[in-house]
Amino acid sequence: MSVILPESHPEHPFNLIPELCRKFYELGWATGTGGGISVKMGDRYFIAPSGVQKERIRPDEIFILNAEQEVVEEPRTTEKKLKMSECTPLFFNAYTMRNAGACLHTHSQNCVLISLLCEKEFRISHIEMIKGISNNVTKKALGFRDSLVVPIIENTDFEADLTASMAECMKKYPESCAVLVRRHGMYVWGDTWQKAKGAVECIDYLMELAIRMRSLGLDWEPQPKSVP
Amino acid sequence: MSVILPESHPEHPFNLIPELCRKFYELGWATGTGGGISVKMGDRYFIAPSGVQKERIRPDEIFILNAEQEVVEEPRTTEKKLKMSECTPLFFNAYTMRNAGACLHTHSQNCVLISLLCEKEFRISHIEMIKGISNNVTKKALGFRDSLVVPIIENTDFEADLTASMAECMKKYPESCAVLVRRHGMYVWGDTWQKAKGAVECIDYLMELAIRMRSLGLDWEPQPKSVP
Amino acid sequence: MSVILPESHPEHPFNLIPELCRKFYELGWATGTGGGISVKMGDRYFIAPSGVQKERIRPDEIFILNAEQEVVEEPRTTEKKLKMSECTPLFFNAYTMRNAGACLHTHSQNCVLISLLCEKEFRISHIEMIKGISNNVTKKALGFRDSLVVPIIENTDFEADLTASMAECMKKYPESCAVLVRRHGMYVWGDTWQKAKGAVECIDYLMELAIRMRSLGLDWEPQPKSVP
Amino acid sequence: MSVILPESHPEHPFNLIPELCRKFYELGWATGTGGGISVKMGDRYFIAPSGVQKERIRPDEIFILNAEQEVVEEPRTTEKKLKMSECTPLFFNAYTMRNAGACLHTHSQNCVLISLLCEKEFRISHIEMIKGISNNVTKKALGFRDSLVVPIIENTDFEADLTASMAECMKKYPESCAVLVRRHGMYVWGDTWQKAKGAVECIDYLMELAIRMRSLGLDWEPQPKSVP
Repeated sequence: MSVILPESHPEHPFNLIPELCRKFYELGWATGTGGGISVKMGDRYFIAPSGVQKERIRPDEIFILNAEQEVVEEPRTTEKKLKMSECTPLFFNAYTMRNAGACLHTHSQNCVLISLLCEKEFRISHIEMIKGISNNVTKKALGFRDSLVVPIIENTDFEADLTASMAECMKKYPESCAVLVRRHGMYVWGDTWQKAKGAVECIDYLMELAIRMRSLGLDWEPQPKSVP
Repeated sequence: MSVILPESHPEHPFNLIPELCRKFYELGWATGTGGGISVKMGDRYFIAPSGVQKERIRPDEIFILNAEQEVVEEPRTTEKKLKMSECTPLFFNAYTMRNAGACLHTHSQNCVLISLLCEKEFRISHIEMIKGISNNVTKKALGFRDSLVVPIIENTDFEADLTASMAECMKKYPESCAVLVRRHGMYVWGDTWQKAKGAVECIDYLMELAIRMRSLGLDWEPQPKSVP
Repeated sequence: MSVILPESHPEHPFNLIPELCRKFYELGWATGTGGGISVKMGDRYFIAPSGVQKERIRPDEIFILNAEQEVVEEPRTTEKKLKMSECTPLFFNAYTMRNAGACLHTHSQNCVLISLLCEKEFRISHIEMIKGISNNVTKKALGFRDSLVVPIIENTDFEADLTASMAECMKKYPESCAVLVRRHGMYVWGDTWQKAKGAVECIDYLMELAIRMRSLGLDWEPQPKSVP
Repeated sequence: MSVILPESHPEHPFNLIPELCRKFYELGWATGTGGGISVKMGDRYFIAPSGVQKERIRPDEIFILNAEQEVVEEPRTTEKKLKMSECTPLFFNAYTMRNAGACLHTHSQNCVLISLLCEKEFRISHIEMIKGISNNVTKKALGFRDSLVVPIIENTDFEADLTASMAECMKKYPESCAVLVRRHGMYVWGDTWQKAKGAVECIDYLMELAIRMRSLGLDWEPQPKSVP
């Protein structure tokens, strides 16, 4: 967000991040302390803590970082000692390389399954929900006949070790707003939190749909001729 | 609705549309800013805005149109600049051709899958929930032994370009209260918002059931002889 | 209930029936105005109205009947003209033949699918959740090694026409606390509303599990020898 | 918990157990009065009652036991006569053998299905969510490349009769924080209620994922060579 909201505003990151974490938890995207959310406001980066129950995060548990990834404000809670999310350097890939306004990380089962059904990329076309996703180069929404392409990187033993391969992948796929991590989950970003949230909803929908299509013997990327 | 409700009434379209949008979002019918809802009250048509998070729509974000599809009252919010739903001319097909009281649009995955499993129509019979759907010609509920028939039109690059083919389809299927859009979703209408909501719930239930039946090798439209 | 609760009590049928209807709706058991709920308190029978959105039923929309199935108190609402549930005579089968305290009716897809996978009965054994269901003759809970048997009757064009075949089926299966209606749904009853609710939850769980077992090639009623 | 919280605290077991029971119910882990939850605070063990609707448990319905499994405080409610959970001796296996801070019991369908697909153990590796589970010997989190191993014991006619075989199984599998009961459900424990909750969420996620993987023909425990 370029607009600076007061802390009392429901969309200030102190309130928004807990709300989105609860929502991700309910969707099964952030159970068992998995997943993570970060949002930029002005020149500050707000990041959820690590290793905690995502649906119970409170406004006073959020870290604030500057563009150098330094903590400029610790969580205000005095009740517990919190660690910053291990996803932090991965979130910053989106902030520095794509000038994102928010970066979201899910452990959705749909992502894991798609990463096992595809080798290097997930591709799907000719589904209306593709139009909810932006091309990071043209800055325009994908068209119905375009292929959504989500690249896949290999998982590592420690989350932070994904940083370089995610960055390399983002260079190779400049149009993409998401990276799948095999056997793990997905990172999705957008110019604003609204766009990042819209993108993750569209991509997860398309992945779930693709798995159901596979079970019914339906193609993900039909030949143009065979689609009216 | 022919009765004019005060704005404070929970079923006034200002309150009803946000409530139904939240519900559609929770059902996965309107995620990623997809889907749409419109309701008629008196001679006014209330329509949700386009390209916004459907579960966050507020009463002051609703457009009011007259029968000529002209905006007679802009959303009252001063916080954002809203666009009217691109579904508007499609909603008006239901208002002008069927004298509907409400028209609903979902992106349900069940609709997309059924549109890929069927060529020109989805047909199902001998399931109790069929009785929750009205025949638009006889104005009576379908019977248990009747076939529900939902016609399918091809998707287009822009939503508004569906207007003519949807209208043509509605002429060809005068009894139907719904049109499937291949690889996209469904439009459903009713004499009242209650009937439209009941119809979309019944049809989506029947489509989900049909997909599960297919996986188990069960017929959608059994020969009368084989059903007691 | 033999205890007479005041109307303000959350478990008085005026409050309990709307709550359970909302719950059934959320579970997909009562969408599109389907399903129904009735509860006995003292010598009065409380029954939800017909053809309405089940999740919106209010306390002033409930009918009260006596043992002769006569309405002794109309719904108090003056806003709408309500019809009594068409399930009423079926509910009374449970009240008169089994001295039930509540009778519930769902349109769960699991019931419809099981009714299509089985001919005359659904049978399952050796699953812990079977122990949540009572035998109507012995009045004891089923054991882990017992077979749950739910008989199936054929659907009719009008709900009330199921009354005789349901009664006949109940005579033939005196131990059962439920009857499946093919291509339609299920009736479940219990000595109290708590027992009826527990039974419908256990049976629906077992039917959903059975469908998933079928997809994985697993037997519903294994030979005793093959189970330790 | 080693910290003693006041009864008004939302995480005091009087409030926490009802909250977690509601949550388990919504997840389908504790429907039909199934499942159970116990939490330790100081030298006291708080246990939910048996045979009641888990989503309606209130603070005044919780039993308090000492380390000898004796009731030191009956539920305070005067409205009903409650029985202690039949899971009590099984919960105490976790308290006495592993010094657990909480022990949870679910009837999740995923557990039942996995117990039917595996003979003596459920094994899965190379999925990120495995890292949310602790090894009870090393006290460290499992790594991405480790195999999660959950042993399976046979069900018995009465819950309490599982006590000895569960204890024997726990001796044989000292690293495990969970035991599956075939055709029944799962017991999961942790040093704190937060860890037990995180573990049950991760394990259930992995079991659901494994069932979906099986349907798609994907391996649960790939050869190290075949995983990058």
